[in-house]
Amino acid sequence: MTTGADVPKQVDHEQRRVQIAEALQRLTTRAGLEGVSLRQVAAEAGMSMGSVQHYFRTKDEMLRYALEHRHRLRSERITAKVLADGPPTPRSILRACLVEILPRDADSEADFLIGVAYFIRAVADPAMAKAFGEGMPELLEFFAGQVRQAQEAGDVPAWADPETEAALLWAIADSQGSEILMGHRTPAQAISTVDYYLDRLFTN
Amino acid sequence: MTTGADVPKQVDHEQRRVQIAEALQRLTTRAGLEGVSLRQVAAEAGMSMGSVQHYFRTKDEMLRYALEHRHRLRSERITAKVLADGPPTPRSILRACLVEILPRDADSEADFLIGVAYFIRAVADPAMAKAFGEGMPELLEFFAGQVRQAQEAGDVPAWADPETEAALLWAIADSQGSEILMGHRTPAQAISTVDYYLDRLFTN
Repeated sequence: MTTGADVPKQVDHEQRRVQIAEALQRLTTRAGLEGVSLRQVAAEAGMSMGSVQHYFRTKDEMLRYALEHRHRLRSERITAKVLADGPPTPRSILRACLVEILPRDADSEADFLIGVAYFIRAVADPAMAKAFGEGMPELLEFFAGQVRQAQEAGDVPAWADPETEAALLWAIADSQGSEILMGHRTPAQAISTVDYYLDRLFTN
Repeated sequence: MTTGADVPKQVDHEQRRVQIAEALQRLTTRAGLEGVSLRQVAAEAGMSMGSVQHYFRTKDEMLRYALEHRHRLRSERITAKVLADGPPTPRSILRACLVEILPRDADSEADFLIGVAYFIRAVADPAMAKAFGEGMPELLEFFAGQVRQAQEAGDVPAWADPETEAALLWAIADSQGSEILMGHRTPAQAISTVDYYLDRLFTN
């Protein structure tokens, strides 16, 4: 039932949702998702409880929106990074994605911590596990697509299985991200492991 | 100041500690570490609060002991598995370790969940991150040693870097374990990814 006159209002609604999602994310990096109340989110966003509840009826609805928002921001950062690095190749694109996932500075560490907070919630909550995993098939298919393209160009050997390679690439970034967070590995060690793997996968 | 007469008593102490650690682990798989109180551990272990406190002065001391106990049990399971599979080779040993880490049934899922519970605590607590990571250098060095041995036998190419391979092997099991737990991947898919990787690493 949308009319032309509703559009500016919808844009404003979207801005408010982003404002709430970003307040939630700031709180999450400090206290995890479990410790965050709607009241705190409202205070952090500089809004009333009623306003927050107007945009999100439940905490879960807010968490799911913030998760989508985080995925959007991450995509934008990766795109910007890839384009800044010169003409993109499958290898440069995959490297940018994997490095972007790793916690290397305050921003990427905050982003990884938010991922951990969702993971923690998802361990005990199948609905959250489903929402948390919603971006995974697309991400894995994107990785597999890059491997396939490199394979067609002769830069990745024919024996490589693009789907399994996608799972391995994700595993490297995901697990080493946790190890960096625990202080068991440095970002430089993790990035060098990413490069070691890409050196082996890409023959050109 | 140990005398011969103390030995049976020490054995009994060790049995009590194991009994407490196992009660803690059963509770952890149901409620996570944060939700577990000393009182509940005592009830689950069939002991008084005072007895539990006699063996562990603090919750953290108990958690660290339970972590060591878990590592010991895992080593024993892996050793048994490797020996049951016939004459062990570096490849069969690495495969047994990686598969053992993955949640594939109720027991291994419980064990992985305990790992997640420690990880969650370690995210916010550097002392726990240190304790949680204490077994890591040994595990990685064990993996690297197997790769090195296979390399000397000509079963792994000379270009492979044993330390980086160890990090990659751990990453595969760790990250895919989480994906299984979330219901994003099946144990069979994860095991086939392990085999794919070992097929590439081992030329014989």
